[in-house]
Amino acid sequence: MNDSYLNFVNSPLGARVARSLGLPKPEVLRRYRADAPEFDGLIAVGAGPAPQLLDALANVVAHIGMTSVAHASAGLWVPLANRHGLMTGRFEPADPATGAQARVRALVFDASGIESSAQLDTLYAFFHDALRSLDQSGRIVVLGRPPEACASPRQWTAQRALEGVTRSLGKEARRGIAVNLMYVSQGAENGLESTLRFFLSPRSAYVSGQVVRIGAAPGGMTQNVGADFDWTQPLAGQRAVVTGAARGIGAAIANVLAAQGAHVIGIDIPSATDALDATLRQIGGTALALDIAAPETPAQIAAALDELGVDVFVHNAGITKDKTIAKMTEAAWRNVIDINLSAQERIDDALLEAGTLRDGGRIVCVSSISGIAGNLGQTNYAASKAGVIGRVQGMAPYLAARRITINAVAPGFIETQMTAKMPLALREAGRRMNSMSQGGQPADVAQTIAWLAHPGSAGVTGQVVRVCGQSLIGA
Amino acid sequence: MNDSYLNFVNSPLGARVARSLGLPKPEVLRRYRADAPEFDGLIAVGAGPAPQLLDALANVVAHIGMTSVAHASAGLWVPLANRHGLMTGRFEPADPATGAQARVRALVFDASGIESSAQLDTLYAFFHDALRSLDQSGRIVVLGRPPEACASPRQWTAQRALEGVTRSLGKEARRGIAVNLMYVSQGAENGLESTLRFFLSPRSAYVSGQVVRIGAAPGGMTQNVGADFDWTQPLAGQRAVVTGAARGIGAAIANVLAAQGAHVIGIDIPSATDALDATLRQIGGTALALDIAAPETPAQIAAALDELGVDVFVHNAGITKDKTIAKMTEAAWRNVIDINLSAQERIDDALLEAGTLRDGGRIVCVSSISGIAGNLGQTNYAASKAGVIGRVQGMAPYLAARRITINAVAPGFIETQMTAKMPLALREAGRRMNSMSQGGQPADVAQTIAWLAHPGSAGVTGQVVRVCGQSLIGA
Repeated sequence: MNDSYLNFVNSPLGARVARSLGLPKPEVLRRYRADAPEFDGLIAVGAGPAPQLLDALANVVAHIGMTSVAHASAGLWVPLANRHGLMTGRFEPADPATGAQARVRALVFDASGIESSAQLDTLYAFFHDALRSLDQSGRIVVLGRPPEACASPRQWTAQRALEGVTRSLGKEARRGIAVNLMYVSQGAENGLESTLRFFLSPRSAYVSGQVVRIGAAPGGMTQNVGADFDWTQPLAGQRAVVTGAARGIGAAIANVLAAQGAHVIGIDIPSATDALDATLRQIGGTALALDIAAPETPAQIAAALDELGVDVFVHNAGITKDKTIAKMTEAAWRNVIDINLSAQERIDDALLEAGTLRDGGRIVCVSSISGIAGNLGQTNYAASKAGVIGRVQGMAPYLAARRITINAVAPGFIETQMTAKMPLALREAGRRMNSMSQGGQPADVAQTIAWLAHPGSAGVTGQVVRVCGQSLIGA
Repeated sequence: MNDSYLNFVNSPLGARVARSLGLPKPEVLRRYRADAPEFDGLIAVGAGPAPQLLDALANVVAHIGMTSVAHASAGLWVPLANRHGLMTGRFEPADPATGAQARVRALVFDASGIESSAQLDTLYAFFHDALRSLDQSGRIVVLGRPPEACASPRQWTAQRALEGVTRSLGKEARRGIAVNLMYVSQGAENGLESTLRFFLSPRSAYVSGQVVRIGAAPGGMTQNVGADFDWTQPLAGQRAVVTGAARGIGAAIANVLAAQGAHVIGIDIPSATDALDATLRQIGGTALALDIAAPETPAQIAAALDELGVDVFVHNAGITKDKTIAKMTEAAWRNVIDINLSAQERIDDALLEAGTLRDGGRIVCVSSISGIAGNLGQTNYAASKAGVIGRVQGMAPYLAARRITINAVAPGFIETQMTAKMPLALREAGRRMNSMSQGGQPADVAQTIAWLAHPGSAGVTGQVVRVCGQSLIGA
């Protein structure tokens, strides 16, 4: 779980050695800490023609208490920010003599009004002027409209082009900077807060190069949470189940959901009972030692949760049994498909049928980059994880009537006991082949799941979000 | 344009050196040659429960004259093949004593009837038994149903899982084997021939890890070509325009379309007139020296084509002007967006308005892996190429009423004068980071475009097909 190269090149001696040898120097990423402010510093705002999301943006900036500066492209921002009672000013380009420039924590560009490819030059103007001002572990968010809902092919084209810009920015920004794109549907403007907060927060340290759609929430649900909502305890009063919770990513998920106020019910196989108990005891949760693959388990989970029900269900448990298909046993195939995929289906069916998962609830499934790109020796695992993607896409419309969302996270290289056992060359390749030049932490996956589980994320469903530091690997 | 490592390790001495040093040995890919049979050898057929596409498959196998063997999973194949007058037999697993096995050229699995994750084990059974029997430069095609059209979330899940299997098979098969997945809509069974032929043919040598959807053709068009259709000259009597046709990929496209019977009109900038003339002269085509970015060009193209019209338009012309965005000039941004993206929009508008592009025609655009994954120093280029993806997705429904299809190809590392100039380390990384361990040839892109331009490809529209040897790089 220890990236010794990262630690070395960020030590005083190591930094000197790395510099003299021309070695890459991955940043120590700024991550969320309960004892440090989540949001601070400057946010620079840019915009294309006729921006439609500045008002929603100003709302969020006001809530999180950042100070904003307006790039020349966002002339509308200053009066708007004043109306929202925001401290604001003009973004000052670099002093040509000294190169000195105000440091900013985040760049946000409202591209929602862009209707043609020629208008994309407003993105150029903003990022050309402002990218160098962005701090280490800074954030870039581009706001657009879902291409598939655009009125004309030209608008669709221009909005779709935003993906190319943001993904390229992620690859060239480096320095721990995360770059993401939010496509906000018409009518969903008030539903963007939980997602925008997540992308601006250190909680999204290892999430970059992602495209997230914010839809009008299913079932006519109010997307936004109320004005008196406690954003520090978004899951207060909720009950959340996490499978595979004894160790690693599952334990991190349990910890983060508990820190956000949830009572966590952790499930893991009976042989992991001690670790499971220890994890859940620390957070005042409940341990359920059950084998998710057993045929009676779905009914047992439903029975155990029945009286109080559950608001959030995280399907995290999974196994690998890697072999090329010619050498793979049939049992290895069946086992991986059953535990990683079929068991999720059986459990959801039981919980949904019994009404154990409450209306307005959240299902979050753990997929994998292997499910997106395939992987050598993982036909079984990749099938199961690609199936998970199909599951969230296929279930989302079906669950919308009950205002339940279902999404997946697809982790890339995460520092766990599992990856620590990989052969050195493979491990180092996996660690470095992403825009952060390092592996992620279990907490990075957990924070992403907590965002999807958030009451304010009602407009996010049927989606797959990678937690991979913008891995080079994809499809 | 010369991959000297590929040539070296496939020489007698080099093969020995590579073996003793444990170096990877990329295959010399089997490519289409007019003087060699396009289809020959054995095709092994497997199937999941209740397969629905075996009849359509048998039709194609009969047309192309391959001999089939049925895996135990495809018991229905033998009587069906007999009905189609096909020579067929049973697939024999390896002799446990000698390991000897019949060599097959292609493995085709009909997964269309799979309705649940547990049924995916039929894929395991087939590929476990048969993968080792597959020849170098062999082909794997998996046939399924589009997940998004499935009746239940479980079926959607299982069909979506096929992507994970095929992409993993591509990564482990190696030896120049290409693996692709076709999602065939209900009612589009008769429209799969042009695509299945392409994926079984040496024409698709560098296309692997791709997912293609065959829809019911737009506008009620007959998808399949008639029984008397000449598959050796699919574009006979058609007129095809290719932009950027003077050299490289554009010239290869012109050559392939001409070889398939089209009269080709090649467009390139006036400064490339000599090369353009030479390319077009060789194939009896017409050269049009025009700058596609000039405002008057669309009208000039429409006027030049007016009397005879055009059936196929290939938007291939494109430029790069790479720089990180902080160092990029505004002109470099605008130029790349305008030539690679906006010019395509202006030209299509002119041709569609004037009716120059005939109903039932084909538009094929050249995108790029950079448009999918983004790239360092290519914010402008990636924006333009992502925009091209938006363009084909946005235009497809709009053009359906006129039975015009629009698709994009996204080349990965292709051996051209442009890539020959890359720095060695970058070039070698680009060449090797794919399942073929080598760069592609311009003809690989051209053959893919010819398939999309094919009269039989009426059910393929709004799609992006990578020509990348299943590059590791993606999103």
